Amino acid sequence: MNLNRYNKKSKIVKPVLLLLLLFSLSTFAQIQRVEPPFWYAGMHNPELQILFYGKNIAENDVTVSNGISIKSIEKTENPNYLFVTIDTKGVAAQEILFSFSKNKKVVFTKKYTLKQRRDNSALRKSYDASDMIYLIMPDRFANGNPKNDSQKALAEKADRNNSSGRHGGDIEGVIQNLDYLQELGVTALWPTPLCEDNDPQGSYHGYAQSDLYKIDPRYGTNEDYLKLSAELHKRDMKLIMDYVTNHWGAQHWMMNDLPTYDWIHQFPGYAQTNYRMTTQFDINASIIDTKMCVDGWFVKSMPDLNQSNPLVLNYLIQNAIWWIEYADLDGFRVDTYSYNDKIGIAKWTKAITDEYPSFNIVGEVWMHDQAQMAYWQKDSKLSAIQNYNSYLPSVMDFTLHNATSVAFNENKAEWDKGLIRIYNNFTNDFLYPNPNNILTFVENHDTQRFNEIYKKDFKKYQMAMTLMATVRGVPQLYYGSEIAMAGNKNEGDGAIRLDFPGGWSGDSNNAFAKNGRTEEQQQFFDFTSKLFQWRKTNEAVHFGKMTHYIPENNVYVYFRYTDSKTVMVVVNNNLTSSAINPKRFQENIKNFKFGKDIFSKKTIDLNYEFTIEAQSVLLLELE
Amino acid sequence: MNLNRYNKKSKIVKPVLLLLLLFSLSTFAQIQRVEPPFWYAGMHNPELQILFYGKNIAENDVTVSNGISIKSIEKTENPNYLFVTIDTKGVAAQEILFSFSKNKKVVFTKKYTLKQRRDNSALRKSYDASDMIYLIMPDRFANGNPKNDSQKALAEKADRNNSSGRHGGDIEGVIQNLDYLQELGVTALWPTPLCEDNDPQGSYHGYAQSDLYKIDPRYGTNEDYLKLSAELHKRDMKLIMDYVTNHWGAQHWMMNDLPTYDWIHQFPGYAQTNYRMTTQFDINASIIDTKMCVDGWFVKSMPDLNQSNPLVLNYLIQNAIWWIEYADLDGFRVDTYSYNDKIGIAKWTKAITDEYPSFNIVGEVWMHDQAQMAYWQKDSKLSAIQNYNSYLPSVMDFTLHNATSVAFNENKAEWDKGLIRIYNNFTNDFLYPNPNNILTFVENHDTQRFNEIYKKDFKKYQMAMTLMATVRGVPQLYYGSEIAMAGNKNEGDGAIRLDFPGGWSGDSNNAFAKNGRTEEQQQFFDFTSKLFQWRKTNEAVHFGKMTHYIPENNVYVYFRYTDSKTVMVVVNNNLTSSAINPKRFQENIKNFKFGKDIFSKKTIDLNYEFTIEAQSVLLLELE
Repeated sequence: MNLNRYNKKSKIVKPVLLLLLLFSLSTFAQIQRVEPPFWYAGMHNPELQILFYGKNIAENDVTVSNGISIKSIEKTENPNYLFVTIDTKGVAAQEILFSFSKNKKVVFTKKYTLKQRRDNSALRKSYDASDMIYLIMPDRFANGNPKNDSQKALAEKADRNNSSGRHGGDIEGVIQNLDYLQELGVTALWPTPLCEDNDPQGSYHGYAQSDLYKIDPRYGTNEDYLKLSAELHKRDMKLIMDYVTNHWGAQHWMMNDLPTYDWIHQFPGYAQTNYRMTTQFDINASIIDTKMCVDGWFVKSMPDLNQSNPLVLNYLIQNAIWWIEYADLDGFRVDTYSYNDKIGIAKWTKAITDEYPSFNIVGEVWMHDQAQMAYWQKDSKLSAIQNYNSYLPSVMDFTLHNATSVAFNENKAEWDKGLIRIYNNFTNDFLYPNPNNILTFVENHDTQRFNEIYKKDFKKYQMAMTLMATVRGVPQLYYGSEIAMAGNKNEGDGAIRLDFPGGWSGDSNNAFAKNGRTEEQQQFFDFTSKLFQWRKTNEAVHFGKMTHYIPENNVYVYFRYTDSKTVMVVVNNNLTSSAINPKRFQENIKNFKFGKDIFSKKTIDLNYEFTIEAQSVLLLELE
Repeated sequence: MNLNRYNKKSKIVKPVLLLLLLFSLSTFAQIQRVEPPFWYAGMHNPELQILFYGKNIAENDVTVSNGISIKSIEKTENPNYLFVTIDTKGVAAQEILFSFSKNKKVVFTKKYTLKQRRDNSALRKSYDASDMIYLIMPDRFANGNPKNDSQKALAEKADRNNSSGRHGGDIEGVIQNLDYLQELGVTALWPTPLCEDNDPQGSYHGYAQSDLYKIDPRYGTNEDYLKLSAELHKRDMKLIMDYVTNHWGAQHWMMNDLPTYDWIHQFPGYAQTNYRMTTQFDINASIIDTKMCVDGWFVKSMPDLNQSNPLVLNYLIQNAIWWIEYADLDGFRVDTYSYNDKIGIAKWTKAITDEYPSFNIVGEVWMHDQAQMAYWQKDSKLSAIQNYNSYLPSVMDFTLHNATSVAFNENKAEWDKGLIRIYNNFTNDFLYPNPNNILTFVENHDTQRFNEIYKKDFKKYQMAMTLMATVRGVPQLYYGSEIAMAGNKNEGDGAIRLDFPGGWSGDSNNAFAKNGRTEEQQQFFDFTSKLFQWRKTNEAVHFGKMTHYIPENNVYVYFRYTDSKTVMVVVNNNLTSSAINPKRFQENIKNFKFGKDIFSKKTIDLNYEFTIEAQSVLLLELE
């Protein structure tokens, strides 16, 4: 109303007044948050739902400039939120303007940018079985910028003496050590979450995010993350984001003023999940158990998001897509995948893979039965029994992890022990729609350390790592194992998440550099580097078929092969050497005459029985 | 030629000569075996393949009387066999005559009978979840006829002092004790194989059959078996035959003169199976491992039948059908099901269920993973992944058996122990096409004895048996457990197959009779009888739905229910009593107000918290 009067009274002052007005409007306190903060033109899904947050913002009407159409404006029970959905179909990259008005008078406006996508963004390649993924906890890897270790605005300050505290590792530290990773044979990097986690305690793990659009300043800036991505790509390496759909932190900015009561699951407030993920397919399960599994909170500090609320789901979908576009990501790892609302997470996963058809996403489905894990992989025939499809391209081979965690200490030939456990794991591959897109690992940031279980036994490490590198699937290495890092989970999670030696200035041991490593570190590093550098070169262990033979006397033999290449792996888990008769493997050896061992470079004549040393592995390229 | 000459020379002497000739022919040594020995008119599959065995029998031409057509005559490399396939379509029950001729002259003939089927034979009902199956080893149950214990013609003589020897139990002994079984609540009897097993040692188990058409004379006659069937039917009880398709005994009559070299798997002669049944669906398995699993012999004394040979397969199909018709059977249990040729056994199973659409067959698929067991059940979506269908209606719940074998000794609340093991077993029911047609058991003749594991702990027995009687599936009880029989498998199979006390005249303890039982035997018997007599009356535990709740503090609660009836089962596996709050189970309790315990007859008010005693079970009918 007042604005109109000005317009009528004076044509001269109008532009000046308008400018003043616009200036005041654009900085107006009534908009505290806009998420996503910007978007991209030309997306597969043209609909964009923008969250505007500000005091009583829902009292306004909204219009948008440049002829762009608003498809819907959603208000919730909380007047401080407006969800405005626009149609970006055919809209070029540009700046647009949202106008917020009352009684047909614009009260304030907000600029919004639709950016240009990178070339071929939608068809970006992702990680696959040709990769080796290196998993790090960024707080514990390398402190590239000691100045950002503590932040005024964030509760938890650096304290390297606290095993559950922040130690100061950051993105700059990762970038500084990319040459190390490259030398090791890493082709893809999976850092645990880097977004802001403002929990007062234990925030270093990053799974209690407080801002989904912002890198935690203790790790660096959003631009630093972008730089990490670009530096990886320069080296032909990939960046995998650890995405959390199931929950966020109790310190998330929305928690003080939820858009809707049911934005998170409330009982009211906190109730714990029963952790029984089997309820999600159990035909005998009670309704209450099934519901409490996914609606209960993982821990008290992590409010459980309600992905069955379309606004929540859309928020998570757009945030994920935003990061892919913004940081030029190569893949996701999704935390606690099977704790999400089952229908909601499938929609989330499908929305992302609809946008990026080749984008790989591995979900944490921590179960102990192949059928139960296979249930969650895209196009599973098992979940199809219940008319469900998660659309999740990849799951993690937790049963293989279980097997490798005990097998190498079982050095006698027994019906169901030792290498039989590992063999048995692959006998159920028929259950998986895509066995070659399963993450294989001997450990991760939540499990006991491999080198702790096996007391840094180099022979056991060699056997296990060679297995990981040569069986079907996408191998994942947990930082530090390549330099014999141990640490006992029973002493707390901090013990399996030790600082990488050399990552902090003043570290007496610098394992990043050859001349800084101990003899043991060098031994482990050399082996690991040789193995994974070789792996890069051999497509048979990437996408070749696998044929394995029932372990006899605790010796496991298997082959990976394409039409042109064949790799033969022999693992002897005995305390004594074993004789191998190649005749048994004729169907794979075919006309090959020799096997050249990658490690020793020795050549074995496949016409004759040969010997494999105690607790060792032969990795033979057949010729 | 000679025969024709007689015909021409004298019309008077002809009948006499013919009679003489026929007499001599019908007893002619040239036919030593005809199998099946007779058949039935009006079968669904009209083709009947008759095996004629005799010295150089294949040199003859064959014709058949009464206008019946011969569809094929198959000869093998062994001239002593002829496989003659006739078409019985539309042929009434009658006696027919096969004529064997050389140079167009009949050399000898053989009468063959097509019998009348029983009314409704094809649509016979079978066992299902309303039944309770009692498994016996007939040699060890009751010696009804001491005169047949040893037989001149059969190698192994009775020796009750030899735990692996024949003890003299027989069909007559079973018939004499049917009232006992009826009192116990048994509705179906599964005796281990009764056909002749002429192995020189260990023949009492019967799995090394030497004649598939003949009851072992030490058990009785074919007619005795028929009588057992009739006596069972009189009491509304069912007879399940233990059928062996995978192998037969080294003493089988054919083994001296095999129809074809490949009738059995030869390497040449014996080679052992690798027992790795996972090879049958393992997409990574080598061809040789896959082949050796099913082609290798189970043990040296049991030649492995080649079900991929159509003559062998047909022999087994017809033999099975013959027994169903002859002995009026109600079902099969099939030994070592997953060791058979995979395609062959599916054809066998389908042929039988095509003939008898409601006939239940439970296969021994002894695996330790639900997906692997579910693979073998008819119409499995898992085996459909590999375009395979076994057509096997029922499998055995070996994972439940594994769980019950340890759970009751785990009396603390732990994440994956105690009753959680049993709960977990049912969380994978979605994998089974038909969870209600799975055999549930705590033990069988090949496993450790339940009362041995649990040292005859009556409380543990009560919990386990009530579970068995009330969860989904078809419960199976192994003879003797109901009278606290124990025996340690580690001392040999004989120890888990002890003589039922009272089955032999002169036994000091007669557990068949109330006044002969010890106090402990009576205690176990009373409980078991009460449980299974009750079970007969409650359709909710037969075919009702099941809802279970995650065990909390080692207390497992589940419900079986139809629209009209609800049963609530509470199992407390703790060493202390536990409080139960019915509110948690509201979705099943609904408007019911009281639960009446079957055992104590006490009534529990479901509006209030109630207590369950340490290591006990409540079996509540809701009112």
